[in-house]
Amino acid sequence: MKESGRKQGAPSPCAACKLLRRRCAQDCVFAPYFPADDPQKFANVHKVFGASNVNKMLQELPVDQRGDAVSSMVYEANARVRDPVYGCVGAISSLQQQIDVLQTQLALAQAEVVHLRVRQTASMPNHGVGPGSPSSSGSPSSRLMGSQFRPTFDMDTACETHQMY
Amino acid sequence: MKESGRKQGAPSPCAACKLLRRRCAQDCVFAPYFPADDPQKFANVHKVFGASNVNKMLQELPVDQRGDAVSSMVYEANARVRDPVYGCVGAISSLQQQIDVLQTQLALAQAEVVHLRVRQTASMPNHGVGPGSPSSSGSPSSRLMGSQFRPTFDMDTACETHQMY
Repeated sequence: MKESGRKQGAPSPCAACKLLRRRCAQDCVFAPYFPADDPQKFANVHKVFGASNVNKMLQELPVDQRGDAVSSMVYEANARVRDPVYGCVGAISSLQQQIDVLQTQLALAQAEVVHLRVRQTASMPNHGVGPGSPSSSGSPSSRLMGSQFRPTFDMDTACETHQMY
Repeated sequence: MKESGRKQGAPSPCAACKLLRRRCAQDCVFAPYFPADDPQKFANVHKVFGASNVNKMLQELPVDQRGDAVSSMVYEANARVRDPVYGCVGAISSLQQQIDVLQTQLALAQAEVVHLRVRQTASMPNHGVGPGSPSSSGSPSSRLMGSQFRPTFDMDTACETHQMY
Protein backbone atom coordinates (compact mmCIF):
# COMPACT_ATOMS: atom_id res chain seq x y z
CA MET A 1 0.00 0.00 0.00
CA LYS A 2 1.22 3.48 -0.91
CA GLU A 3 2.01 6.04 1.73
CA SER A 4 0.75 9.46 0.79
CA GLY A 5 2.71 12.19 2.48
CA ARG A 6 4.04 11.98 5.99
CA LYS A 7 3.30 9.97 9.10
CA GLN A 8 2.00 11.92 12.05
CA GLY A 9 4.71 12.46 14.63
CA ALA A 10 7.47 11.14 12.37
CA PRO A 11 7.95 13.86 9.77
CA SER A 12 9.31 12.31 6.58
CA PRO A 13 9.61 14.89 3.81
CA CYS A 14 7.61 14.54 0.60
CA ALA A 15 9.49 13.77 -2.63
CA ALA A 16 9.56 17.46 -3.56
CA CYS A 17 11.00 18.70 -0.28
CA LYS A 18 13.48 15.83 -0.27
CA LEU A 19 14.76 16.77 -3.73
CA LEU A 20 14.80 20.47 -2.86
CA ARG A 21 16.51 19.69 0.49
CA ARG A 22 14.10 21.76 2.49
CA ARG A 23 11.90 21.21 5.52
CA CYS A 24 8.54 19.71 4.60
CA ALA A 25 6.02 21.91 6.42
CA GLN A 26 2.69 20.60 7.67
CA ASP A 27 0.91 22.62 4.94
CA CYS A 28 3.40 21.81 2.16
CA VAL A 29 1.64 22.33 -1.18
CA PHE A 30 3.50 19.40 -2.78
CA ALA A 31 3.12 16.77 -0.05
CA PRO A 32 -0.40 15.50 -0.96
CA TYR A 33 0.65 14.81 -4.57
CA PHE A 34 4.32 13.86 -4.41
CA PRO A 35 4.78 11.06 -1.85
CA ALA A 36 8.28 10.19 -0.71
CA ASP A 37 8.11 6.72 -2.26
CA ASP A 38 7.78 8.05 -5.86
CA PRO A 39 10.71 10.48 -6.24
CA GLN A 40 10.77 10.35 -10.06
CA LYS A 41 7.26 11.78 -10.30
CA PHE A 42 8.47 15.07 -8.87
CA ALA A 43 11.91 14.91 -10.48
CA ASN A 44 10.48 15.12 -14.01
CA VAL A 45 7.98 17.84 -13.10
CA HIS A 46 10.81 19.83 -11.50
CA LYS A 47 13.08 19.30 -14.50
CA VAL A 48 10.47 20.51 -16.98
CA PHE A 49 8.42 23.11 -15.11
CA GLY A 50 10.59 23.99 -12.13
CA ALA A 51 9.47 23.61 -8.51
CA SER A 52 8.86 27.33 -8.14
CA ASN A 53 6.49 27.46 -11.15
CA VAL A 54 4.63 24.33 -10.03
CA ASN A 55 4.28 25.81 -6.56
CA LYS A 56 2.86 29.05 -8.00
CA MET A 57 0.49 27.22 -10.37
CA LEU A 58 -0.86 25.03 -7.56
CA GLN A 59 -1.28 27.94 -5.16
CA GLU A 60 -3.41 29.73 -7.77
CA LEU A 61 -5.85 26.80 -7.97
CA PRO A 62 -8.55 25.71 -5.53
CA VAL A 63 -7.49 22.64 -3.54
CA ASP A 64 -10.02 20.35 -5.25
CA GLN A 65 -8.47 21.02 -8.68
CA ARG A 66 -4.83 20.57 -7.70
CA GLY A 67 -4.82 16.79 -8.05
CA ASP A 68 -5.92 17.03 -11.70
CA ALA A 69 -3.42 19.83 -12.33
CA VAL A 70 -0.60 17.70 -10.90
CA SER A 71 -1.67 14.71 -13.02
CA SER A 72 -1.66 16.76 -16.20
CA MET A 73 1.70 18.34 -15.34
CA VAL A 74 3.20 14.93 -14.59
CA TYR A 75 1.87 13.67 -17.93
CA GLU A 76 3.33 16.66 -19.79
CA ALA A 77 6.64 16.43 -17.96
CA ASN A 78 7.04 12.71 -18.69
CA ALA A 79 6.18 13.31 -22.34
CA ARG A 80 8.79 16.10 -22.54
CA VAL A 81 11.47 13.91 -20.92
CA ARG A 82 10.61 11.12 -23.37
CA ASP A 83 10.51 13.45 -26.38
CA PRO A 84 12.45 16.67 -25.71
CA VAL A 85 11.53 18.18 -29.09
CA TYR A 86 7.76 17.67 -29.27
CA GLY A 87 6.70 16.62 -25.76
CA CYS A 88 3.02 15.84 -25.55
CA VAL A 89 2.36 18.01 -28.60
CA GLY A 90 3.69 14.97 -30.47
CA ALA A 91 0.79 13.00 -29.02
CA ILE A 92 -1.66 15.67 -30.17
CA SER A 93 -0.23 15.50 -33.66
CA SER A 94 -0.48 11.71 -33.71
CA LEU A 95 -4.10 11.76 -32.49
CA GLN A 96 -4.93 14.38 -35.11
CA GLN A 97 -3.54 12.08 -37.80
CA GLN A 98 -5.65 9.21 -36.50
CA ILE A 99 -8.71 11.47 -36.71
CA ASP A 100 -7.88 12.37 -40.31
CA VAL A 101 -7.59 8.68 -41.26
CA LEU A 102 -10.82 7.78 -39.44
CA GLN A 103 -12.70 10.63 -41.11
CA THR A 104 -11.54 9.43 -44.53
CA GLN A 105 -12.55 5.85 -43.73
CA LEU A 106 -15.92 7.03 -42.44
CA ALA A 107 -16.63 9.18 -45.48
CA LEU A 108 -15.83 6.24 -47.78
CA ALA A 109 -17.98 3.82 -45.78
CA GLN A 110 -20.88 6.28 -45.72
CA ALA A 111 -20.58 6.88 -49.45
CA GLU A 112 -20.71 3.14 -49.98
CA VAL A 113 -23.83 2.83 -47.82
CA VAL A 114 -25.55 5.48 -49.95
CA HIS A 115 -24.38 3.79 -53.15
CA LEU A 116 -25.62 0.36 -52.04
CA ARG A 117 -28.97 1.77 -50.93
CA VAL A 118 -29.55 3.51 -54.24
CA ARG A 119 -28.60 0.35 -56.15
CA GLN A 120 -30.85 -1.74 -53.93
CA THR A 121 -33.80 0.60 -54.40
CA ALA A 122 -33.29 0.64 -58.15
CA SER A 123 -33.34 -3.16 -58.26
CA MET A 124 -36.57 -3.44 -56.25
CA PRO A 125 -39.72 -4.23 -58.26
CA ASN A 126 -41.58 -1.17 -56.87
CA HIS A 127 -38.83 1.40 -56.74
CA GLY A 128 -41.06 4.36 -57.47
CA VAL A 129 -40.29 5.86 -54.09
CA GLY A 130 -37.11 7.37 -55.48
CA PRO A 131 -33.56 7.43 -54.17
CA GLY A 132 -34.33 10.03 -51.53
CA SER A 133 -36.26 7.72 -49.27
CA PRO A 134 -34.63 4.29 -49.13
CA SER A 135 -34.43 2.92 -45.61
CA SER A 136 -34.71 6.40 -44.23
CA SER A 137 -36.25 5.17 -41.00
CA GLY A 138 -32.97 3.47 -40.95
CA SER A 139 -30.16 1.89 -39.14
CA PRO A 140 -28.13 3.27 -36.26
CA SER A 141 -25.34 4.47 -38.55
CA SER A 142 -27.73 6.52 -40.67
CA ARG A 143 -28.76 8.40 -37.58
CA LEU A 144 -25.14 9.16 -36.76
CA MET A 145 -24.20 10.13 -40.29
CA GLY A 146 -25.27 13.72 -39.92
CA SER A 147 -23.12 14.23 -36.88
CA GLN A 148 -19.71 14.18 -38.51
CA PHE A 149 -17.67 16.86 -36.88
CA ARG A 150 -14.52 18.69 -37.78
CA PRO A 151 -11.59 18.22 -35.47
CA THR A 152 -10.92 21.19 -33.26
CA PHE A 153 -7.18 20.98 -33.71
CA ASP A 154 -5.04 21.60 -36.72
CA MET A 155 -1.46 20.84 -35.84
CA ASP A 156 -0.13 22.45 -39.02
CA THR A 157 -1.07 25.82 -37.65
CA ALA A 158 -1.70 25.03 -33.98
CA CYS A 159 1.55 26.44 -32.70
CA GLU A 160 0.93 29.69 -34.49
CA THR A 161 -2.80 30.16 -34.03
CA HIS A 162 -3.52 28.71 -30.61
CA GLN A 163 -1.93 31.59 -28.80
CA MET A 164 -3.96 33.33 -26.20
CA TYR A 165 -2.55 36.78 -26.54
CA MET B 1 7.38 42.02 -42.05
CA LYS B 2 8.57 40.44 -38.83
CA GLU B 3 11.99 41.15 -37.45
CA SER B 4 13.65 38.02 -36.15
CA GLY B 5 16.19 38.85 -33.49
CA ARG B 6 18.47 41.85 -33.62
CA LYS B 7 19.76 44.20 -36.28
CA GLN B 8 23.50 44.10 -36.92
CA GLY B 9 25.20 47.06 -35.29
CA ALA B 10 22.09 48.14 -33.37
CA PRO B 11 21.75 45.58 -30.60
CA SER B 12 18.08 45.36 -29.59
CA PRO B 13 17.50 42.61 -27.03
CA CYS B 14 15.25 39.64 -27.85
CA ALA B 15 11.95 39.30 -26.00
CA ALA B 16 13.50 36.87 -23.50
CA CYS B 17 16.46 39.07 -22.57
CA LYS B 18 14.17 42.10 -22.41
CA LEU B 19 11.87 40.36 -19.92
CA LEU B 20 14.80 38.98 -17.94
CA ARG B 21 16.49 42.43 -18.03
CA ARG B 22 19.81 41.06 -19.19
CA ARG B 23 22.22 41.77 -22.01
CA CYS B 24 21.28 39.91 -25.19
CA ALA B 25 24.54 38.29 -26.29
CA GLN B 26 25.39 37.66 -29.93
CA ASP B 27 24.94 33.91 -29.35
CA CYS B 28 21.80 34.22 -27.17
CA VAL B 29 19.97 30.88 -27.27
CA PHE B 30 16.56 32.59 -27.17
CA ALA B 31 17.08 35.34 -29.76
CA PRO B 32 16.34 33.29 -32.92
CA TYR B 33 12.97 32.16 -31.54
CA PHE B 34 11.73 35.01 -29.38
CA PRO B 35 11.84 38.25 -31.38
CA ALA B 36 11.44 41.54 -29.56
CA ASP B 37 8.15 42.30 -31.32
CA ASP B 38 6.33 39.29 -29.79
CA PRO B 39 6.91 39.61 -26.03
CA GLN B 40 3.92 37.45 -25.03
CA LYS B 41 5.37 34.41 -26.78
CA PHE B 42 8.23 34.32 -24.29
CA ALA B 43 6.18 35.56 -21.34
CA ASN B 44 3.93 32.48 -21.33
CA VAL B 45 6.83 30.06 -21.87
CA HIS B 46 8.69 31.73 -18.98
CA LYS B 47 5.62 31.64 -16.74
CA VAL B 48 5.02 27.93 -17.34
CA PHE B 49 8.48 26.42 -17.85
CA GLY B 50 10.81 29.08 -16.51
CA ALA B 51 13.56 30.71 -18.57
CA SER B 52 16.26 28.62 -16.94
CA ASN B 53 14.57 25.32 -17.82
CA VAL B 54 13.87 26.45 -21.39
CA ASN B 55 17.49 27.53 -21.73
CA LYS B 56 18.68 24.13 -20.50
CA MET B 57 16.26 22.19 -22.73
CA LEU B 58 17.31 24.16 -25.81
CA GLN B 59 21.02 23.81 -25.06
CA GLU B 60 20.61 20.04 -24.91
CA LEU B 61 19.15 19.93 -28.45
CA PRO B 62 20.90 20.27 -31.81
CA VAL B 63 20.27 23.68 -33.37
CA ASP B 64 18.10 22.29 -36.16
CA GLN B 65 15.59 20.87 -33.65
CA ARG B 66 15.29 23.93 -31.43
CA GLY B 67 12.69 25.70 -33.57
CA ASP B 68 10.31 22.74 -33.26
CA ALA B 69 11.03 22.45 -29.54
CA VAL B 70 10.22 26.13 -29.04
CA SER B 71 6.99 25.78 -31.06
CA SER B 72 5.83 22.84 -28.97
CA MET B 73 6.75 24.59 -25.71
CA VAL B 74 4.90 27.74 -26.80
CA TYR B 75 1.88 25.60 -27.65
CA GLU B 76 2.00 23.84 -24.25
CA ALA B 77 2.56 27.09 -22.37
CA ASN B 78 -0.37 28.82 -24.08
CA ALA B 79 -2.59 25.82 -23.37
CA ARG B 80 -1.57 25.88 -19.69
CA VAL B 81 -2.25 29.63 -19.42
CA ARG B 82 -5.65 29.09 -21.05
CA ASP B 83 -6.47 26.04 -18.91
CA PRO B 84 -4.39 25.96 -15.71
CA VAL B 85 -5.83 22.60 -14.61
CA TYR B 86 -5.48 20.45 -17.71
CA GLY B 87 -3.25 22.42 -20.09
CA CYS B 88 -2.78 20.67 -23.41
CA VAL B 89 -3.64 17.33 -21.78
CA GLY B 90 -7.21 18.64 -22.08
CA ALA B 91 -6.70 18.76 -25.86
CA ILE B 92 -5.44 15.17 -25.83
CA SER B 93 -8.50 14.07 -23.92
CA SER B 94 -10.81 15.90 -26.32
CA LEU B 95 -9.10 14.38 -29.38
CA GLN B 96 -9.33 10.94 -27.78
CA GLN B 97 -13.08 11.43 -27.36
CA GLN B 98 -13.40 12.43 -31.01
CA ILE B 99 -11.56 9.25 -31.97
CA ASP B 100 -13.93 7.15 -29.86
CA VAL B 101 -16.96 8.73 -31.56
CA LEU B 102 -15.46 8.31 -35.04
CA GLN B 103 -14.61 4.65 -34.35
CA THR B 104 -18.20 4.00 -33.29
CA GLN B 105 -19.57 5.77 -36.37
CA LEU B 106 -17.16 3.84 -38.60
CA ALA B 107 -18.04 0.47 -37.07
CA LEU B 108 -21.75 1.17 -37.59
CA ALA B 109 -21.27 2.32 -41.18
CA GLN B 110 -19.12 -0.71 -41.97
CA ALA B 111 -21.67 -3.06 -40.40
CA GLU B 112 -24.34 -1.45 -42.56
CA VAL B 113 -22.23 -1.92 -45.70
CA VAL B 114 -21.89 -5.62 -44.90
CA HIS B 115 -25.62 -5.88 -44.16
CA LEU B 116 -26.60 -4.16 -47.41
CA ARG B 117 -24.21 -6.29 -49.45
CA VAL B 118 -25.57 -9.51 -48.00
CA ARG B 119 -29.15 -8.38 -48.63
CA GLN B 120 -28.25 -7.33 -52.16
CA THR B 121 -26.59 -10.65 -52.92
CA ALA B 122 -29.55 -12.55 -51.53
CA SER B 123 -31.95 -10.60 -53.77
CA MET B 124 -29.92 -11.29 -56.94
CA PRO B 125 -31.31 -13.99 -59.28
CA ASN B 126 -28.03 -15.95 -59.25
CA HIS B 127 -26.96 -15.56 -55.66
CA GLY B 128 -25.26 -18.93 -55.42
CA VAL B 129 -21.88 -17.31 -54.86
CA GLY B 130 -22.66 -16.98 -51.17
CA PRO B 131 -22.31 -14.10 -48.79
CA GLY B 132 -18.55 -14.42 -48.53
CA SER B 133 -17.81 -13.05 -51.96
CA PRO B 134 -20.10 -10.14 -52.79
CA SER B 135 -18.26 -7.20 -54.30
CA SER B 136 -15.05 -8.40 -52.78
CA SER B 137 -12.94 -6.76 -55.47
CA GLY B 138 -14.67 -3.86 -53.95
CA SER B 139 -14.86 -0.22 -53.32
CA PRO B 140 -12.24 1.99 -51.71
CA SER B 141 -13.80 1.68 -48.27
CA SER B 142 -13.70 -2.09 -48.32
CA ARG B 143 -9.96 -1.93 -48.80
CA LEU B 144 -9.64 0.37 -45.81
CA MET B 145 -11.94 -1.64 -43.58
CA GLY B 146 -9.26 -3.97 -42.38
CA SER B 147 -7.05 -1.15 -41.23
CA GLN B 148 -8.99 -0.01 -38.18
CA PHE B 149 -6.50 0.79 -35.50
CA ARG B 150 -6.72 1.23 -31.79
CA PRO B 151 -5.83 4.63 -30.44
CA THR B 152 -2.46 4.78 -28.77
CA PHE B 153 -3.69 6.91 -25.90
CA ASP B 154 -6.03 6.12 -23.09
CA MET B 155 -6.53 9.24 -21.03
CA ASP B 156 -8.23 7.33 -18.22
CA THR B 157 -4.94 5.78 -17.34
CA ALA B 158 -2.50 7.98 -19.23
CA CYS B 159 -1.38 10.01 -16.27
CA GLU B 160 -0.63 6.88 -14.32
CA THR B 161 0.81 4.63 -16.98
CA HIS B 162 2.68 6.97 -19.32
CA GLN B 163 5.48 7.53 -16.88
CA MET B 164 8.94 6.82 -18.06
CA TYR B 165 10.50 5.73 -14.83
